[in-house]
Amino acid sequence: MTGLYFGGDYNPEQWTPDVWKDDVALMRRAGVNLATVGVFAWSSLEPEPGRYEFGWLDQVMDLLADGGVQVDLATPTASPPPWFSLRHPDALPVNADGVRLSHGSRDTYCACAPAYREAAVGIARALGERYAGHPALAMWHVHNEYGTVCHCDHAASSFRRWLRERYGNLGRLNEAWTTAFWSQGYSSWEEIRPPRATQYLVNPTQALDFRRFWSDELLAAYQEQKAILRGFTPDLPVTTNFVFGAWVPVDHARWAAEVDLVAIDHYPGDAGLGAEEQTAFAADLARWWAGGRPWLLMEQAAGSVNVETRLHTKEPGRMTRHSLAHVARGSKGALFFQWRASRGGAEMWHSALVPHSGPGTRRFREVVALGKMLPRLAETGAGAVRAEVAILWDVESWWAMQATHLPSAELDYLAAVQAAHRQVWAAGVGVDLPGPAADLTSYRLVVVPSLYLVPAEAAASIARYVEGGGHVLVTCFSGIVNEDAQVWPDGYPGAFAGLLGVQVEEFHPVAEVRLASGGQGRVWSEDVQLTGAEVIDRYAGGVLDGSPAVTRNAYGEGVAWYVSTQLDDEAYRTLLEQAMRAAGIELPGLPAGVELVRREANGTTWDFLLNHGDAEAVVPADGLDLLSGTEVRGQLVLPAGGQAVVRSD
Amino acid sequence: MTGLYFGGDYNPEQWTPDVWKDDVALMRRAGVNLATVGVFAWSSLEPEPGRYEFGWLDQVMDLLADGGVQVDLATPTASPPPWFSLRHPDALPVNADGVRLSHGSRDTYCACAPAYREAAVGIARALGERYAGHPALAMWHVHNEYGTVCHCDHAASSFRRWLRERYGNLGRLNEAWTTAFWSQGYSSWEEIRPPRATQYLVNPTQALDFRRFWSDELLAAYQEQKAILRGFTPDLPVTTNFVFGAWVPVDHARWAAEVDLVAIDHYPGDAGLGAEEQTAFAADLARWWAGGRPWLLMEQAAGSVNVETRLHTKEPGRMTRHSLAHVARGSKGALFFQWRASRGGAEMWHSALVPHSGPGTRRFREVVALGKMLPRLAETGAGAVRAEVAILWDVESWWAMQATHLPSAELDYLAAVQAAHRQVWAAGVGVDLPGPAADLTSYRLVVVPSLYLVPAEAAASIARYVEGGGHVLVTCFSGIVNEDAQVWPDGYPGAFAGLLGVQVEEFHPVAEVRLASGGQGRVWSEDVQLTGAEVIDRYAGGVLDGSPAVTRNAYGEGVAWYVSTQLDDEAYRTLLEQAMRAAGIELPGLPAGVELVRREANGTTWDFLLNHGDAEAVVPADGLDLLSGTEVRGQLVLPAGGQAVVRSD
Amino acid sequence: MTGLYFGGDYNPEQWTPDVWKDDVALMRRAGVNLATVGVFAWSSLEPEPGRYEFGWLDQVMDLLADGGVQVDLATPTASPPPWFSLRHPDALPVNADGVRLSHGSRDTYCACAPAYREAAVGIARALGERYAGHPALAMWHVHNEYGTVCHCDHAASSFRRWLRERYGNLGRLNEAWTTAFWSQGYSSWEEIRPPRATQYLVNPTQALDFRRFWSDELLAAYQEQKAILRGFTPDLPVTTNFVFGAWVPVDHARWAAEVDLVAIDHYPGDAGLGAEEQTAFAADLARWWAGGRPWLLMEQAAGSVNVETRLHTKEPGRMTRHSLAHVARGSKGALFFQWRASRGGAEMWHSALVPHSGPGTRRFREVVALGKMLPRLAETGAGAVRAEVAILWDVESWWAMQATHLPSAELDYLAAVQAAHRQVWAAGVGVDLPGPAADLTSYRLVVVPSLYLVPAEAAASIARYVEGGGHVLVTCFSGIVNEDAQVWPDGYPGAFAGLLGVQVEEFHPVAEVRLASGGQGRVWSEDVQLTGAEVIDRYAGGVLDGSPAVTRNAYGEGVAWYVSTQLDDEAYRTLLEQAMRAAGIELPGLPAGVELVRREANGTTWDFLLNHGDAEAVVPADGLDLLSGTEVRGQLVLPAGGQAVVRSD
Repeated sequence: MTGLYFGGDYNPEQWTPDVWKDDVALMRRAGVNLATVGVFAWSSLEPEPGRYEFGWLDQVMDLLADGGVQVDLATPTASPPPWFSLRHPDALPVNADGVRLSHGSRDTYCACAPAYREAAVGIARALGERYAGHPALAMWHVHNEYGTVCHCDHAASSFRRWLRERYGNLGRLNEAWTTAFWSQGYSSWEEIRPPRATQYLVNPTQALDFRRFWSDELLAAYQEQKAILRGFTPDLPVTTNFVFGAWVPVDHARWAAEVDLVAIDHYPGDAGLGAEEQTAFAADLARWWAGGRPWLLMEQAAGSVNVETRLHTKEPGRMTRHSLAHVARGSKGALFFQWRASRGGAEMWHSALVPHSGPGTRRFREVVALGKMLPRLAETGAGAVRAEVAILWDVESWWAMQATHLPSAELDYLAAVQAAHRQVWAAGVGVDLPGPAADLTSYRLVVVPSLYLVPAEAAASIARYVEGGGHVLVTCFSGIVNEDAQVWPDGYPGAFAGLLGVQVEEFHPVAEVRLASGGQGRVWSEDVQLTGAEVIDRYAGGVLDGSPAVTRNAYGEGVAWYVSTQLDDEAYRTLLEQAMRAAGIELPGLPAGVELVRREANGTTWDFLLNHGDAEAVVPADGLDLLSGTEVRGQLVLPAGGQAVVRSD
Repeated sequence: MTGLYFGGDYNPEQWTPDVWKDDVALMRRAGVNLATVGVFAWSSLEPEPGRYEFGWLDQVMDLLADGGVQVDLATPTASPPPWFSLRHPDALPVNADGVRLSHGSRDTYCACAPAYREAAVGIARALGERYAGHPALAMWHVHNEYGTVCHCDHAASSFRRWLRERYGNLGRLNEAWTTAFWSQGYSSWEEIRPPRATQYLVNPTQALDFRRFWSDELLAAYQEQKAILRGFTPDLPVTTNFVFGAWVPVDHARWAAEVDLVAIDHYPGDAGLGAEEQTAFAADLARWWAGGRPWLLMEQAAGSVNVETRLHTKEPGRMTRHSLAHVARGSKGALFFQWRASRGGAEMWHSALVPHSGPGTRRFREVVALGKMLPRLAETGAGAVRAEVAILWDVESWWAMQATHLPSAELDYLAAVQAAHRQVWAAGVGVDLPGPAADLTSYRLVVVPSLYLVPAEAAASIARYVEGGGHVLVTCFSGIVNEDAQVWPDGYPGAFAGLLGVQVEEFHPVAEVRLASGGQGRVWSEDVQLTGAEVIDRYAGGVLDGSPAVTRNAYGEGVAWYVSTQLDDEAYRTLLEQAMRAAGIELPGLPAGVELVRREANGTTWDFLLNHGDAEAVVPADGLDLLSGTEVRGQLVLPAGGQAVVRSD
Repeated sequence: MTGLYFGGDYNPEQWTPDVWKDDVALMRRAGVNLATVGVFAWSSLEPEPGRYEFGWLDQVMDLLADGGVQVDLATPTASPPPWFSLRHPDALPVNADGVRLSHGSRDTYCACAPAYREAAVGIARALGERYAGHPALAMWHVHNEYGTVCHCDHAASSFRRWLRERYGNLGRLNEAWTTAFWSQGYSSWEEIRPPRATQYLVNPTQALDFRRFWSDELLAAYQEQKAILRGFTPDLPVTTNFVFGAWVPVDHARWAAEVDLVAIDHYPGDAGLGAEEQTAFAADLARWWAGGRPWLLMEQAAGSVNVETRLHTKEPGRMTRHSLAHVARGSKGALFFQWRASRGGAEMWHSALVPHSGPGTRRFREVVALGKMLPRLAETGAGAVRAEVAILWDVESWWAMQATHLPSAELDYLAAVQAAHRQVWAAGVGVDLPGPAADLTSYRLVVVPSLYLVPAEAAASIARYVEGGGHVLVTCFSGIVNEDAQVWPDGYPGAFAGLLGVQVEEFHPVAEVRLASGGQGRVWSEDVQLTGAEVIDRYAGGVLDGSPAVTRNAYGEGVAWYVSTQLDDEAYRTLLEQAMRAAGIELPGLPAGVELVRREANGTTWDFLLNHGDAEAVVPADGLDLLSGTEVRGQLVLPAGGQAVVRSD
């Protein structure tokens, strides 16, 4: 398909056939062209072991085909039916406390259990056989949101196998895990356990490796299904929907190579502008993972944002702007979970394209309007986002910083990266989120927020980039441990001390701390000794009064900034703008609340302009607004909550 | 007995025989006439399996009989002895995580375990045989505070049997539980489990049915004992003490028909006036359950209110006013847990009629005074409370709203009902708490607070009441789901949209929201579309600015108000007073802090007047104050903390 | 050794032999003379069952001997190796919920498991055989921080055996545990269980006895190892390091008699002056336990204080002052955990004498300076602290007050004792922390803070002390229960009512309450009736308005004060100073923030003066400052953060 996808998860098994016909009619009205079908339909497809009921799905596929809606057909392996769990209790997952979970929700399986893997492959094969060649079939959607872990004996055994492969011999594992501490030395592989409930602090490298292991184990499970489906339909894309969260042991940057189309689910968690920032961050991540290929927003919520204890209802226009923020960054469309709101079940309050109140609502009218908007943006697919800034993102630093006993429990890797992203996003500058080992030469400025874990090669690669004229801005608690989560020797920030021209003698975790510039630091401060850098800002008051807080070091042809605390938003934005300007980046100077994403190709630019604010905003622009179809000359007036996509040649 | 009961739980097994004699002497001094004996005496009565020791109880019963104290004799089945648990580990309860609990507290049994049921029946029979005909015996008290649940395999098996009876076939269960969602379709009954610990969100209808099941299962256990005791003493009342709380899976409104005397335990939980409001609410509930028959306050605390982390000591007079608040609403007396404070054990700090400091204390003097007061009120038993307002209470809505994933975790059914009750109580207007299917024709105003779950017939019955001229005031999140906890189709508030003349397009959960009238809404707001109703108040500010917040609809001969948010106390009181006046109710206009309960019969009225405030209060009154024995003419001066019961013919 | 120890835990198994040589050189530079070796080295010493690897330890011991560093050699039994747990899963500990913990941390053993006890004795014997006679060996360090509990069946069986010994027969146990309440009467020993997860409130005496049992069981485990080591080296001291905390079921006062040198670990938990108060308290406790013998600070942190969620870095000089505060109170030196900061493992962020940043740091310079300071203080070992005040400390009251259902959850025994200690400490007056049964005749004032549990003999002994002319100050919730945790009869404060000349009719737990004097009470108040005492302060406002809050009673030749609430610091300090003066104690009148500890012997005094404040302080002093080597005449100027030890003859 050359245009943009519009649609979402469609679960016809919850409805009667008469509703299916209404559904297809409404989909046509809304311009829906892709439906993800069957994600949780295992017990409907195979109600008893080996007895398949494809009739209803045949009917639905035919109806959709007739209605011009393509199908992203899912394997339903994220929720085995109750009959499976009854027959294979050893395939039910076990938590760290040893509690074997019960079925009756979803994701009640251990991906290491042989019976589960066999059954998963079985249902995938049955679907492949049945629907290969169906006119509606456009894509395969394996499983749902891989990320479920288990601590059972199957998992323990697979973990040991994985460790054997990683470390080769026990001596190397004992060294990497620092098992000499607390008498944890292993004398045989059989002694090793997952990080189950234990008496006191958990070994941090064991915990880190358990996440690494699960990422690989789940990837293997995905690949088994992919291989089978590929066998039936060599030309159709196969993918799975990535879910992002602190609990997810999946290295999406590595998985990206194994999916034909990077697909993400995104559910922001803030009632205010934070939702828009998170949306931009998620889309920038997906864009990086896709590596220049298109990607797809596979799931979002039509009507609400889950904010702590309540579902905040999306204000008029917000669903549209969220969708455009993804499309602007390369999403091949906007999909939603789910098409029609469930009447019962655990997610009956999850919002939907067709709400409980039906199609005669503001919500559905906005859906129809969005459906009309998207085809006008098909041409933007030709362009690419130009990113002058890179902010390093590394899932291993995230996992390593989830250790139970850091010097401060308030250290939060994701928050540190998002704080940097927030400032660059607000400044309207394009940003990539590469890993630490990526080629950085195309960027003017590379931000390295709290990159706690750094292998030697990655540190060297970043240093070479600066040596060759690059600019980096590194923030506190970076370069601290190697890939075994062991402190780099010779003082902090081990891997970056030379590059930054500083030595950090001691950490000083704090609640907050003042800076001479008037800014505020939070959570963290450091006793920074200069070994070549110059001072940009100093601590004011407290035990570090007068000592360096922010520094800058000339290194080779380039520049390396260091920020030894977590700056408040205003001070951080000021500093990052200073660093961007110093790196030669032009700042567009947007009104507050206005988001800009520029895509370009062969001299044509497409500016996505989204006004998230409560007030009308005026931005300079020239060209054709693809959404309104009107010419823009000199300036564009964006109403509160409005949007435009301006093409200029 | 025609007078009022006074006394409480008496646990002589904690004391030596010399104390028993003191006890009876002190009971006589205090006017105690009923003692609940043996509630937790199983291990004292049957110290080893089959070996009974009734001697001590014989002695105690004789002493009490001689002292003129009647006995409410308990079966001790709420706490099986350690020897039972050692012999029947499968009868120990299992929590949702699969932890089998240990004995050493109380309530360590699963009522589904055959061994437990058999043992319970056994000890009940032994007691019946022994004490039928004893002169002290006046009543049977089965068990204690039914409410213990279990997730073990016995419970699973009983749950499945109950489900088979409820649904008949699996197809109907799969439909009711919306098992098509998340692939939960059951293909055999054996696959069904209690809602044990699982991976993610629990099926809300499964959770609701588990509570319904436990209510029925515990009722069956009660009935088994009742049948046996009835066999021995066909003329003596048999009851059990109801406990009320979010954790209790008991539908007391249904159980009420199975007890000869509705009996409740009540322990309020607020240091301030909240304790008095809760007391009135509990007594109004019990009065409704009793359905015009007398009922009994079986347990309350003499000396303290458990407020979060501490026992707040009841101020002088407060125990008396709490007791009178129950008697005013039809309690056949005032009983307490317990007679004499324990020296040891888990509840040694539970207050008692005879405190640790003994009878020479203010506390015991107030007990003696209360004991003298109650006989003067015997005549009030002839009167009935006249309730012009009904506030609907439905335990199924409570249970359904305990689902883990509502649009707002702050939605609280009990709080919503109590908020309505608080305003009517403060206004001094009599109120009933019937279920949704009750006959409402006798009420001038029916309040329907957040009645989330409504079967079709109940909704129809409420509509008919209004059609015929009744007034209702419905509050937000009412009429949303049917008895399977599935959203009513065709938009919110499904079951009540026609009655109210509104359609709610979307919910807007919030922290708080302003109203045009100056009032404040909390937790919730709604996008209300008028389909016939007129606007009483509007939202001010926010995304719903200017749209309807409170409406009124003429329906048939009656009126239906709708409140789409949770009003603050002041705004709610103002609105409810407006609605009461509109419904033709006269408001007595009481001073703040003064509670009024009127009972009447054949032209005679008894006004219970309780001054909970810190200041003297003057109320209009004429007649005889039964407590002081003085005539009241025109007005009554109630000292701070004082009370009067004025009879007027 | 006649001088002071300096050094700490040294874990060479984490490092390569080349680092060992650097270590010894750095130890010499710092003046280190004692290293605790092998605490967690079991898996390094016995990597497979029965295969010992002593080579590396031989080498380390030789290197240390050559470097002049003595060794406190540890048995590594606090962390059995993984191979042990694999072979003996029944020796892994089980928590109250029945979760069997996994190895992979430390302390993953049940001390009641026969296999564990056998293995512990085995490794102790192997070490004794190997290193008895080694020139470096100076002391044995058994295990680490005894305190691990378990709820498994081994533990249950040992608990029953201990109960049989304590109570002799079941009747006595049933009485002591008040099992008549809630039908908990035991008819055979086999029915008794540890306090595992149960349905509702736990029996408080069962919980108390479980702690008493564990204290004795762990002591037996210690004694087994001690006996073996004693066999090899009859003349070397054997000890273990005491850890202090609410979770620790160890009666250190009783254990003290079984160690040759009382040794404590101390980690304060406050960023402010609270850390210094806690340090003084810990050292005063250790001093009392040691009973006039020297004792040893075995572990402290060189660089940080663990404050809730973060490691607060110790300011310059603070490590030194903490160390001197211990030495001042009789510690035979200052040891640390650990020598060199780990590169990995669960405690890689624990501070160390040699930090990650190496020896070229402020931290290590302060270590070197402290190493030079200590030898100058060797002579102070001759002196003893003179304590005119005793504050009673009783671990059984602490345990009993950890019951789940006191009248207020805010009652905190440790906080009550520390509040008293804080005032006396701030006043610069020496204080002992004896148990309730101690001989009190040498004290001018005895403070009895919230001594909830008091056996009859202890109460009588305190009364005799006052009768003979002693002064006591008792605070609220004292004298309430006996050793079975059963309320003393005849009203509160049962055990002390006669002594204090008051009767407490009722408790009034509160948030806070005002006093007539202007002070503030917190958490607690009481309805105090005078039976001989005079009133010192009254409650102001609230239900107790005007009734006695603080009283004083003449009793025999002495005086007994009673404080029926928890006074705020200022009011408490004022009252305690009044009581100290009345008892004939002279108050030194120190500047705020200055700590004074006086040791004396034969007419010589050594005044340890520590200025914890931010400002210079001037104190009167005459003599020789041992630290600076200068003469002090009339007054001493202490810089902010400074210290002096002034000898005067």
